[in-house]
Amino acid sequence: MAAYDDQNVFAKILRGEIPCFEVFSDDRSLAFLGIMPRSPGHTLVIPRAPARGILDIADDDLAAVARTGKRIAIAAMKAFDAEGIILQQFSEPASGQVVFHLHLHVMPVRAGIELLPAHTRKEDMAVLADHAKRMIAALGS
Amino acid sequence: MAAYDDQNVFAKILRGEIPCFEVFSDDRSLAFLGIMPRSPGHTLVIPRAPARGILDIADDDLAAVARTGKRIAIAAMKAFDAEGIILQQFSEPASGQVVFHLHLHVMPVRAGIELLPAHTRKEDMAVLADHAKRMIAALGS
Repeated sequence: MAAYDDQNVFAKILRGEIPCFEVFSDDRSLAFLGIMPRSPGHTLVIPRAPARGILDIADDDLAAVARTGKRIAIAAMKAFDAEGIILQQFSEPASGQVVFHLHLHVMPVRAGIELLPAHTRKEDMAVLADHAKRMIAALGS
Repeated sequence: MAAYDDQNVFAKILRGEIPCFEVFSDDRSLAFLGIMPRSPGHTLVIPRAPARGILDIADDDLAAVARTGKRIAIAAMKAFDAEGIILQQFSEPASGQVVFHLHLHVMPVRAGIELLPAHTRKEDMAVLADHAKRMIAALGS
Protein backbone atom coordinates (compact mmCIF):
# COMPACT_ATOMS: atom_id res chain seq x y z
CA MET A 1 0.00 0.00 0.00
CA ALA A 2 1.27 3.46 -0.87
CA ALA A 3 2.01 5.99 1.87
CA TYR A 4 -0.53 8.67 2.79
CA ASP A 5 -0.15 11.71 0.53
CA ASP A 6 -1.27 14.94 2.23
CA GLN A 7 -1.88 16.66 -1.12
CA ASN A 8 -5.19 14.81 -1.63
CA VAL A 9 -8.31 16.97 -1.92
CA PHE A 10 -9.80 15.91 1.43
CA ALA A 11 -6.59 16.79 3.26
CA LYS A 12 -6.85 20.20 1.60
CA ILE A 13 -10.45 20.51 2.80
CA LEU A 14 -9.31 19.62 6.34
CA ARG A 15 -6.66 22.33 6.19
CA GLY A 16 -9.20 24.86 4.90
CA GLU A 17 -7.36 25.24 1.58
CA ILE A 18 -10.47 24.15 -0.35
CA PRO A 19 -14.06 24.96 0.62
CA CYS A 20 -16.72 22.34 1.26
CA PHE A 21 -20.39 22.15 2.19
CA GLU A 22 -19.69 21.20 5.82
CA VAL A 23 -22.59 19.75 7.76
CA PHE A 24 -20.93 18.39 10.92
CA SER A 25 -17.58 18.47 12.65
CA ASP A 26 -16.08 17.15 15.86
CA ASP A 27 -12.58 16.66 17.19
CA ARG A 28 -11.93 13.51 15.15
CA SER A 29 -14.23 13.71 12.13
CA LEU A 30 -15.70 16.02 9.50
CA ALA A 31 -18.82 15.53 7.38
CA PHE A 32 -19.59 17.43 4.19
CA LEU A 33 -21.76 16.99 1.12
CA GLY A 34 -20.41 15.17 -1.90
CA ILE A 35 -20.38 17.50 -4.91
CA MET A 36 -21.27 14.63 -7.23
CA PRO A 37 -24.08 13.13 -5.13
CA ARG A 38 -25.43 9.72 -6.04
CA SER A 39 -28.60 10.60 -4.12
CA PRO A 40 -29.88 13.88 -2.62
CA GLY A 41 -28.04 14.36 0.66
CA HIS A 42 -25.08 12.10 -0.20
CA THR A 43 -22.59 13.00 2.52
CA LEU A 44 -18.94 12.08 3.07
CA VAL A 45 -17.53 11.48 6.53
CA ILE A 46 -13.77 11.62 6.98
CA PRO A 47 -11.35 11.34 9.89
CA ARG A 48 -9.28 14.42 10.74
CA ALA A 49 -6.23 12.19 11.14
CA PRO A 50 -4.41 11.02 8.01
CA ALA A 51 -5.52 7.57 6.80
CA ARG A 52 -5.78 6.22 3.25
CA GLY A 53 -8.56 3.75 4.02
CA ILE A 54 -9.84 0.93 6.18
CA LEU A 55 -6.45 -0.79 6.22
CA ASP A 56 -4.50 1.96 7.98
CA ILE A 57 -7.00 3.99 10.02
CA ALA A 58 -6.54 3.96 13.81
CA ASP A 59 -9.37 2.27 15.74
CA ASP A 60 -10.37 5.46 17.58
CA ASP A 61 -10.59 7.44 14.37
CA LEU A 62 -12.60 4.65 12.73
CA ALA A 63 -15.01 4.60 15.67
CA ALA A 64 -15.44 8.38 15.34
CA VAL A 65 -16.10 8.14 11.60
CA ALA A 66 -18.66 5.39 12.19
CA ARG A 67 -20.36 7.34 14.99
CA THR A 68 -20.54 10.46 12.84
CA GLY A 69 -21.80 8.35 9.95
CA LYS A 70 -24.65 7.12 12.12
CA ARG A 71 -25.48 10.66 13.20
CA ILE A 72 -25.48 11.80 9.56
CA ALA A 73 -27.65 8.80 8.56
CA ILE A 74 -30.29 9.64 11.17
CA ALA A 75 -30.35 13.31 10.18
CA ALA A 76 -30.44 12.51 6.46
CA MET A 77 -33.53 10.31 6.92
CA LYS A 78 -35.31 13.38 8.25
CA ALA A 79 -33.76 16.07 6.05
CA PHE A 80 -34.43 14.20 2.81
CA ASP A 81 -37.56 12.26 3.77
CA ALA A 82 -35.50 9.15 3.06
CA GLU A 83 -36.58 5.53 3.47
CA GLY A 84 -33.19 3.92 3.88
CA ILE A 85 -29.44 4.47 4.01
CA ILE A 86 -26.59 2.99 2.00
CA LEU A 87 -23.08 3.20 3.47
CA GLN A 88 -20.06 2.54 1.30
CA GLN A 89 -16.34 2.83 1.81
CA PHE A 90 -13.70 2.03 -0.81
CA SER A 91 -10.06 1.31 -0.02
CA GLU A 92 -7.28 1.27 -2.59
CA PRO A 93 -7.49 1.79 -6.39
CA ALA A 94 -8.79 -1.73 -7.14
CA SER A 95 -11.93 -0.90 -5.13
CA GLY A 96 -12.66 2.27 -7.08
CA GLN A 97 -11.19 4.65 -4.49
CA VAL A 98 -10.21 7.94 -6.15
CA VAL A 99 -9.30 10.25 -3.24
CA PHE A 100 -6.81 8.63 -0.90
CA HIS A 101 -8.05 9.93 2.42
CA LEU A 102 -10.59 7.57 4.00
CA HIS A 103 -14.17 8.62 3.32
CA LEU A 104 -17.40 6.96 4.28
CA HIS A 105 -20.26 7.57 1.85
CA VAL A 106 -23.62 8.05 3.58
CA MET A 107 -26.39 7.98 1.00
CA PRO A 108 -30.05 8.46 1.89
CA VAL A 109 -32.29 6.53 -0.49
CA ARG A 110 -35.93 6.13 -1.38
CA ALA A 111 -37.59 2.95 -2.64
CA GLY A 112 -37.53 2.48 -6.40
CA ILE A 113 -35.01 5.26 -7.02
CA GLU A 114 -31.60 4.00 -8.12
CA LEU A 115 -28.39 5.67 -7.02
CA LEU A 116 -26.77 7.67 -9.81
CA PRO A 117 -23.57 6.01 -11.05
CA ALA A 118 -20.51 7.34 -9.20
CA HIS A 119 -18.76 10.47 -10.48
CA THR A 120 -21.25 11.26 -13.23
CA ARG A 121 -22.97 14.53 -12.40
CA LYS A 122 -21.75 17.57 -10.50
CA GLU A 123 -24.63 19.03 -8.50
CA ASP A 124 -25.62 22.68 -8.78
CA MET A 125 -23.97 24.73 -6.01
CA ALA A 126 -27.27 26.36 -4.98
CA VAL A 127 -28.84 22.93 -4.54
CA LEU A 128 -25.91 21.78 -2.41
CA ALA A 129 -26.13 24.93 -0.30
CA ASP A 130 -29.82 24.21 0.30
CA HIS A 131 -29.11 20.55 1.12
CA ALA A 132 -26.38 21.55 3.58
CA LYS A 133 -28.84 23.87 5.34
CA ARG A 134 -31.39 21.06 5.58
CA MET A 135 -28.82 18.65 7.00
CA ILE A 136 -27.54 21.16 9.54
CA ALA A 137 -31.10 21.85 10.66
CA ALA A 138 -31.84 18.12 11.01
CA LEU A 139 -28.59 17.54 12.91
CA GLY A 140 -29.39 20.33 15.33
CA SER A 141 -32.88 19.21 16.17
CA MET B 1 -38.84 2.01 11.18
CA ALA B 2 -40.09 -1.44 12.18
CA ALA B 3 -39.04 -2.97 15.49
CA TYR B 4 -36.19 -5.48 15.65
CA ASP B 5 -37.45 -9.02 14.93
CA ASP B 6 -35.32 -11.69 16.60
CA GLN B 7 -36.42 -14.36 14.13
CA ASN B 8 -34.09 -13.02 11.42
CA VAL B 9 -31.44 -15.41 10.15
CA PHE B 10 -28.48 -13.58 11.71
CA ALA B 11 -30.15 -13.61 15.13
CA LYS B 12 -30.50 -17.37 14.66
CA ILE B 13 -26.82 -17.62 13.78
CA LEU B 14 -25.95 -15.65 16.95
CA ARG B 15 -28.04 -18.06 19.03
CA GLY B 16 -26.38 -21.06 17.37
CA GLU B 17 -29.65 -22.23 15.82
CA ILE B 18 -28.17 -22.01 12.31
CA PRO B 19 -24.55 -22.80 11.41
CA CYS B 20 -22.18 -20.35 9.72
CA PHE B 21 -18.63 -20.20 8.47
CA GLU B 22 -17.36 -18.20 11.44
CA VAL B 23 -14.00 -16.50 11.02
CA PHE B 24 -13.83 -14.16 14.03
CA SER B 25 -15.71 -13.47 17.21
CA ASP B 26 -15.39 -11.14 20.21
CA ASP B 27 -17.68 -9.99 22.98
CA ARG B 28 -19.57 -7.52 20.80
CA SER B 29 -19.23 -8.79 17.22
CA LEU B 30 -19.21 -11.87 15.01
CA ALA B 31 -17.74 -12.28 11.53
CA PHE B 32 -18.65 -15.07 9.13
CA LEU B 33 -18.49 -15.71 5.40
CA GLY B 34 -21.39 -14.74 3.19
CA ILE B 35 -22.82 -17.83 1.48
CA MET B 36 -23.57 -15.82 -1.66
CA PRO B 37 -20.22 -14.03 -1.92
CA ARG B 38 -19.84 -11.15 -4.35
CA SER B 39 -16.08 -11.71 -4.25
CA PRO B 40 -13.92 -14.52 -2.80
CA GLY B 41 -13.67 -13.88 0.93
CA HIS B 42 -16.81 -11.71 1.17
CA THR B 43 -17.38 -11.57 4.93
CA LEU B 44 -20.24 -10.24 7.04
CA VAL B 45 -19.63 -8.54 10.37
CA ILE B 46 -22.55 -8.22 12.78
CA PRO B 47 -23.07 -6.91 16.30
CA ARG B 48 -24.09 -9.44 18.97
CA ALA B 49 -26.64 -6.93 20.26
CA PRO B 50 -29.92 -6.56 18.40
CA ALA B 51 -29.94 -3.71 15.86
CA ARG B 52 -31.71 -3.45 12.52
CA GLY B 53 -29.19 -1.13 10.93
CA ILE B 54 -27.20 2.07 11.16
CA LEU B 55 -30.19 4.02 12.49
CA ASP B 56 -30.64 2.07 15.72
CA ILE B 57 -27.28 0.50 16.60
CA ALA B 58 -25.65 1.66 19.85
CA ASP B 59 -22.39 3.59 19.40
CA ASP B 60 -20.28 0.99 21.24
CA ASP B 61 -21.64 -1.84 19.13
CA LEU B 62 -21.06 0.16 15.97
CA ALA B 63 -17.47 0.86 17.01
CA ALA B 64 -16.97 -2.87 17.60
CA VAL B 65 -18.42 -3.78 14.20
CA ALA B 66 -16.19 -1.19 12.52
CA ARG B 67 -13.09 -2.41 14.40
CA THR B 68 -13.81 -6.02 13.49
CA GLY B 69 -14.49 -4.94 9.91
CA LYS B 70 -11.03 -3.39 9.78
CA ARG B 71 -9.47 -6.53 11.20
CA ILE B 72 -11.30 -8.65 8.62
CA ALA B 73 -10.27 -6.28 5.81
CA ILE B 74 -6.58 -6.53 6.73
CA ALA B 75 -6.74 -10.33 6.96
CA ALA B 76 -8.71 -10.65 3.71
CA MET B 77 -6.06 -8.68 1.80
CA LYS B 78 -3.59 -11.38 2.80
CA ALA B 79 -5.85 -14.44 2.64
CA PHE B 80 -7.17 -13.65 -0.83
CA ASP B 81 -4.19 -11.80 -2.28
CA ALA B 82 -6.55 -8.86 -2.66
CA GLU B 83 -5.74 -5.38 -3.95
CA GLY B 84 -8.51 -3.44 -2.27
CA ILE B 85 -11.55 -3.59 -0.01
CA ILE B 86 -15.16 -2.53 -0.51
CA LEU B 87 -17.30 -2.00 2.59
CA GLN B 88 -21.06 -1.74 2.28
CA GLN B 89 -23.90 -1.55 4.76
CA PHE B 90 -27.59 -1.31 3.84
CA SER B 91 -30.28 -0.09 6.22
CA GLU B 92 -34.02 -0.55 5.63
CA PRO B 93 -35.79 -2.16 2.65
CA ALA B 94 -35.41 0.87 0.35
CA SER B 95 -31.63 0.39 0.52
CA GLY B 96 -31.77 -3.26 -0.52
CA GLN B 97 -31.43 -4.66 3.02
CA VAL B 98 -32.85 -8.18 3.16
CA VAL B 99 -31.88 -9.47 6.63
CA PHE B 100 -32.87 -7.04 9.36
CA HIS B 101 -29.92 -7.44 11.70
CA LEU B 102 -27.17 -4.93 10.93
CA HIS B 103 -24.42 -6.45 8.79
CA LEU B 104 -21.33 -4.86 7.35
CA HIS B 105 -20.16 -6.39 4.06
CA VAL B 106 -16.37 -6.64 3.79
CA MET B 107 -15.42 -7.55 0.22
CA PRO B 108 -11.83 -8.07 -0.86
CA VAL B 109 -11.38 -7.11 -4.52
CA ARG B 110 -8.83 -7.30 -7.28
CA ALA B 111 -8.36 -4.76 -10.08
CA GLY B 112 -10.46 -5.39 -13.17
CA ILE B 113 -12.68 -8.00 -11.53
CA GLU B 114 -16.24 -6.81 -10.95
CA LEU B 115 -18.21 -7.84 -7.87
CA LEU B 116 -20.90 -10.39 -8.66
CA PRO B 117 -24.39 -8.90 -8.42
CA ALA B 118 -25.87 -9.37 -4.93
CA HIS B 119 -27.76 -12.59 -4.12
CA THR B 120 -27.06 -14.33 -7.42
CA ARG B 121 -24.90 -17.35 -6.72
CA LYS B 122 -24.65 -19.60 -3.69
CA GLU B 123 -21.04 -20.68 -3.20
CA ASP B 124 -20.04 -24.34 -2.90
CA MET B 125 -19.78 -25.33 0.80
CA ALA B 126 -16.31 -26.87 0.31
CA VAL B 127 -15.05 -23.62 -1.18
CA LEU B 128 -16.49 -21.65 1.76
CA ALA B 129 -14.89 -24.06 4.23
CA ASP B 130 -11.53 -23.52 2.53
CA HIS B 131 -12.01 -19.74 2.51
CA ALA B 132 -12.89 -19.75 6.20
CA LYS B 133 -9.68 -21.66 6.95
CA ARG B 134 -7.66 -19.13 4.98
CA MET B 135 -9.28 -16.22 6.79
CA ILE B 136 -8.78 -17.76 10.21
CA ALA B 137 -5.12 -18.39 9.41
CA ALA B 138 -4.64 -14.80 8.21
CA LEU B 139 -6.41 -13.43 11.30
CA GLY B 140 -4.21 -15.45 13.60
CA SER B 141 -0.90 -14.47 12.09
